[in-house]
Amino acid sequence: MRRVCIVVTARTSYTKFKPVLSALKRRGDTDVQVICAASAVLEKFGRVDLAIENDGFRVVERIHSLIDSELPLGMAKSTSMLLNDCAAAFARIQPDIVVVMADRFEILAPAIAASYQNIPLAHIQGGETTGNIDQKVRHAVTKLSDFHFPATERAATLLRQFAVRPENIFLTGCPSIDIALPVTRKKKLELDMFGQHFGVGPVMDISRGYLIVMQHPVTNQYSAARDQVQETLYAVAATGIPTFWFWPNADAGHESISKALRVFRENRHPENIYFIKNLPPEDFLELAYFSRGIIGNSSVAIRECSFLGVPAVNIGSRQNGRERGPNVTDVNVDRNEISQAILTNLNGRVGQSTLYGTGDAGEKIAEVLANIQLEMAG
Amino acid sequence: MRRVCIVVTARTSYTKFKPVLSALKRRGDTDVQVICAASAVLEKFGRVDLAIENDGFRVVERIHSLIDSELPLGMAKSTSMLLNDCAAAFARIQPDIVVVMADRFEILAPAIAASYQNIPLAHIQGGETTGNIDQKVRHAVTKLSDFHFPATERAATLLRQFAVRPENIFLTGCPSIDIALPVTRKKKLELDMFGQHFGVGPVMDISRGYLIVMQHPVTNQYSAARDQVQETLYAVAATGIPTFWFWPNADAGHESISKALRVFRENRHPENIYFIKNLPPEDFLELAYFSRGIIGNSSVAIRECSFLGVPAVNIGSRQNGRERGPNVTDVNVDRNEISQAILTNLNGRVGQSTLYGTGDAGEKIAEVLANIQLEMAG
Amino acid sequence: MRRVCIVVTARTSYTKFKPVLSALKRRGDTDVQVICAASAVLEKFGRVDLAIENDGFRVVERIHSLIDSELPLGMAKSTSMLLNDCAAAFARIQPDIVVVMADRFEILAPAIAASYQNIPLAHIQGGETTGNIDQKVRHAVTKLSDFHFPATERAATLLRQFAVRPENIFLTGCPSIDIALPVTRKKKLELDMFGQHFGVGPVMDISRGYLIVMQHPVTNQYSAARDQVQETLYAVAATGIPTFWFWPNADAGHESISKALRVFRENRHPENIYFIKNLPPEDFLELAYFSRGIIGNSSVAIRECSFLGVPAVNIGSRQNGRERGPNVTDVNVDRNEISQAILTNLNGRVGQSTLYGTGDAGEKIAEVLANIQLEMAG
Amino acid sequence: MRRVCIVVTARTSYTKFKPVLSALKRRGDTDVQVICAASAVLEKFGRVDLAIENDGFRVVERIHSLIDSELPLGMAKSTSMLLNDCAAAFARIQPDIVVVMADRFEILAPAIAASYQNIPLAHIQGGETTGNIDQKVRHAVTKLSDFHFPATERAATLLRQFAVRPENIFLTGCPSIDIALPVTRKKKLELDMFGQHFGVGPVMDISRGYLIVMQHPVTNQYSAARDQVQETLYAVAATGIPTFWFWPNADAGHESISKALRVFRENRHPENIYFIKNLPPEDFLELAYFSRGIIGNSSVAIRECSFLGVPAVNIGSRQNGRERGPNVTDVNVDRNEISQAILTNLNGRVGQSTLYGTGDAGEKIAEVLANIQLEMAG
Repeated sequence: MRRVCIVVTARTSYTKFKPVLSALKRRGDTDVQVICAASAVLEKFGRVDLAIENDGFRVVERIHSLIDSELPLGMAKSTSMLLNDCAAAFARIQPDIVVVMADRFEILAPAIAASYQNIPLAHIQGGETTGNIDQKVRHAVTKLSDFHFPATERAATLLRQFAVRPENIFLTGCPSIDIALPVTRKKKLELDMFGQHFGVGPVMDISRGYLIVMQHPVTNQYSAARDQVQETLYAVAATGIPTFWFWPNADAGHESISKALRVFRENRHPENIYFIKNLPPEDFLELAYFSRGIIGNSSVAIRECSFLGVPAVNIGSRQNGRERGPNVTDVNVDRNEISQAILTNLNGRVGQSTLYGTGDAGEKIAEVLANIQLEMAG
Repeated sequence: MRRVCIVVTARTSYTKFKPVLSALKRRGDTDVQVICAASAVLEKFGRVDLAIENDGFRVVERIHSLIDSELPLGMAKSTSMLLNDCAAAFARIQPDIVVVMADRFEILAPAIAASYQNIPLAHIQGGETTGNIDQKVRHAVTKLSDFHFPATERAATLLRQFAVRPENIFLTGCPSIDIALPVTRKKKLELDMFGQHFGVGPVMDISRGYLIVMQHPVTNQYSAARDQVQETLYAVAATGIPTFWFWPNADAGHESISKALRVFRENRHPENIYFIKNLPPEDFLELAYFSRGIIGNSSVAIRECSFLGVPAVNIGSRQNGRERGPNVTDVNVDRNEISQAILTNLNGRVGQSTLYGTGDAGEKIAEVLANIQLEMAG
Repeated sequence: MRRVCIVVTARTSYTKFKPVLSALKRRGDTDVQVICAASAVLEKFGRVDLAIENDGFRVVERIHSLIDSELPLGMAKSTSMLLNDCAAAFARIQPDIVVVMADRFEILAPAIAASYQNIPLAHIQGGETTGNIDQKVRHAVTKLSDFHFPATERAATLLRQFAVRPENIFLTGCPSIDIALPVTRKKKLELDMFGQHFGVGPVMDISRGYLIVMQHPVTNQYSAARDQVQETLYAVAATGIPTFWFWPNADAGHESISKALRVFRENRHPENIYFIKNLPPEDFLELAYFSRGIIGNSSVAIRECSFLGVPAVNIGSRQNGRERGPNVTDVNVDRNEISQAILTNLNGRVGQSTLYGTGDAGEKIAEVLANIQLEMAG
Repeated sequence: MRRVCIVVTARTSYTKFKPVLSALKRRGDTDVQVICAASAVLEKFGRVDLAIENDGFRVVERIHSLIDSELPLGMAKSTSMLLNDCAAAFARIQPDIVVVMADRFEILAPAIAASYQNIPLAHIQGGETTGNIDQKVRHAVTKLSDFHFPATERAATLLRQFAVRPENIFLTGCPSIDIALPVTRKKKLELDMFGQHFGVGPVMDISRGYLIVMQHPVTNQYSAARDQVQETLYAVAATGIPTFWFWPNADAGHESISKALRVFRENRHPENIYFIKNLPPEDFLELAYFSRGIIGNSSVAIRECSFLGVPAVNIGSRQNGRERGPNVTDVNVDRNEISQAILTNLNGRVGQSTLYGTGDAGEKIAEVLANIQLEMAG
């Protein structure tokens, strides 16, 4: 049976891999090997590997590869560590094809580990454009990959421009939309946000609406990460609107953000902010679907929320260049701009868009992974 | 003073860096930091680092990064090792710009180490096309780089197609042509090939012409490396023409080739083959200039030899897709085809071509490195 | 000038290195190279490297080597990373002798890096006995070392028993006592513990005495680290005595302890505990000297506090086997035992002991490092 | 079933592990996991991993860890690489006990990987004394180990002196003697040394006796490795006695020795030396048993050959301090001393000695590994 190896390095990439994994499992005609690495094996990022096993998938390797560093040096060293261990893992488990997702810095490691060992490489979400190191990573992975699953027509066009063979490009939409699709069938928020102890902070009355914040460090400005998040903290606190604030991912600068959040809580005890480390993706999207809107610089706001019709205030440069639907309002890193945009634009659902897919990407990707002829693109 | 860091990982890349280094030195307006790594620090590859110091340049770091492995796994692990050590070196020596050359697998390491640490990256010889992993590496490095020095117009065009900003593309020609230029002013071979003990083998009468062989492993077919080189060995031995055979580089498979060469010598004592580990680049090009022609799969045959007008028999797929001048005859990995092509086509100089440059690339590249405004491409 | 390389991997080892560094600086007859690594370069452990530079010493390398992992695997991988980078550093800076301290897991890395490169190795605090992995590390480092600076007569005897050449053993006392010596000349606590924002927590009235807690994970029981610290938390909270609680070091399990501390603060807002990340060593010892006593499992309680005459409640097995003076009361990991011992034994200073030295270890060690003939022990 | 993990890093350690592996297999009451690493996975060292599988044992991991370097730095970096990969392997395969052999530099890697992860560690051949880095490695591994299988009474005594708990010391003899035992039942050399193409060189008439040479680099004098081996080359060539010369192991300096051997062959075509890369251990010992004697600095000459009664000329300092039987004559690295000693002392078998065991070490060690209570020594 064809061995399909999925490399998961973060909670967000698992969210997008899950529909693919589910579709592969339903088909039953491949041997799926999940490798968890980087933040995906750490408790402080919610042990994504255990979540994957709970969802019924087989994790064949766990790689501890993150270097503890507050410098961008740590990103390079972590990628080195993952490259070494991932290469050895591939030599051991001998996948027929390796699949990587999107543009986190560390995915260059499995991409190199596979391509240098002549293992065909598939890339989901290539061809998109953004404004920082993510873009370099994404396009570099494209050039190492043999098969491509872009999410949008514009992305597919860019891949062709980049001399990718058209027959190896499959416009499937983004699998994250597959997760979002069932949420749109719900009538109201069914999650008990405070009863289930997802996080820490005051119990809030969310009956008249609530906001969501998800703000990550912008990696080529890591020293400013703390200042940036403070603008959002002050803006959100000032609105007084109940808010669920999600912990940042493991990019360079995340320590600064975490510290800023802790200090803010410590010193100001914001009455309208509840801090959450992690939610299952389905629950997160449900929470988003019934929110007044989402704030920060996460791609979720642009991608899944365009499909859900959840309005978004996108802060700063992190998502520059990324294709967006009508749900997004862009603002600078400035507390006044942010609060103004919240009050003006985040008042509940707007029109939905299928820019990023229609909810069947997992099936389509699984079909290709199971059946494509595995010649390398060369 | 601007710190310009040059990363040298092999003898062949130093050949091309040398005109740039010389031009930077003549200018005197930058602080040049040479890092030697991979095969460039090993005795068995001729200690390129010492040659660089002998040439008057400053080597600031030596990185021992090659993993001893006969598997492609070794390429991935070596790249991991170099990524770790190179990233730490950059953090230590704080270059303002890093320069990498061409497409050897290990250069993804300095490319990642620089770009993840927000250090502007320049790439020489991007945009060319070939037929194997080199191409993936070259294009991936392009997507991580901020400044580009392509060698040919077609390469520059491909870079623009790859969404590189036109203002960051400098069509300088290939610096290897700078080395070739003075050779064309010589009237006859001045090297004493046997007196200076460059290698091992019989003293041959080369007054009626001689051949050169340089054949590297083709990395995605490494197990076949030994068979491939044997075709050439038998073909060359059969011609009876005096031949200087150069040892292969450090790619996966080089051990197999080295072994094949040793076994062939041991068992058959070829009377017309003299084996050489290394020559200074200027000497190599002089030797080529006065030869009947060159055989193998090295890019030298296509690049410098097109400028020199030295006819070449290019074997197999390694140079597939690379732009070539009229000096090149392509053959399959087959001893009969190879000997036929040698006899038919390798009879001394043919017309020269400026496809790969006019001999002033070093100056042009140095000018840009010294003066360009160092914003990252983003 | 002889190059003496000091490898600092943690705040606690710097405390002990400082008198040696000061003595070497006063002498001025050696070239001192400080390498900072592991937790000593991280902000979240207080950037020990910057403290060292502030103290007037030269840091020649910074190595980011800690792997972010909650498993003991992380200790092994961190040691691997440090071994690689430290070996490369030694090859670069060519020390004539390398000095390592005590028994933290990561010091096997510089010990191997030095001994495998034939660089003489000196070890401070060898020959002591304790009850866990520290002991294995300490004795293994002893067997890799050429010169030995034990702190106690019993330790020196054990080194001789371990076949260390007697002429390479220098009974100098522990340099940590050098730091403690000037503290004993103070008449009262001069530190303003709350004004200078050393930590977080309530401002407390410490005029009638206060306690100090320093509790590290016990590495071969890492999963129990959280439970263990909770026993102390409840015991200390129950006493109601004002307490300065110091954050744990970077051993496996420290994340669990940090989390336990954070959750406890969050949920119970203890009125009598002030949490501190870091104090300069002199300040810490001053704080200890005027305290009612110290609680936890740190070696400071046994070593410096025996000299200072500060009574200590030592919890659990971490210090098992270590030589101790009359100031120490041992208890099990049990909140009742702990609070009982606090109330009974921690009532201010008891008799002082010179078991661990007389305060001139730095001078003695510096003398040997500067003048010993550097033959390796073989 | 108890999982017993055997870490093999070289041909010579496999020789000694084999009787243990055979005994464990015969018992059938443990799950044996063989990890092959370092030179044991490389073709140029004879792919020991494949030999192990051919012998019917299960290799569960192959680790490519050797750094290609002519400097001692390479030993440290290779150990780092092995530490990382071995630690990850242990985390994956979860052995109940890990077993390491003797004193090659790289075994500190599995020793640290096991002890830092709280996996009981057993060490075969601890407590012996020699004159260089091997001794430091051996004793350091002793201090990291929980269970000990020394080969001689003197070694066991030293372990007790090193504070190893007597109940964890098992005086089993050396398992290499188990391999030697059946050889002593043979009446004459049954190997066809030239028909089976073990090596390269002239077919020699060995009916009137022959010599064996096995000379390794002395690692703390690596630059002298080439000079040292030349003394032996000239001495052996001068005797004119037919000689089987074995390639060196992978220690620092082996490249120099290999090169010296190649150059000597190339230039002088010695008529009485046949070069061999590798023989199965049983065959090697058979060859030794019927030889006039053995020359070099291998421990085989001292250990197995004492039991076999094969006289040995031991050259230089590499075996200094090692206990030896009456079969050994020590000489300096001097061609005259060496040839004199060959002619005087190597004239066929002398008295046998059971200093290193009686041939049942494998059984005894297997019994302990299968049944000992696995508490760590602490």
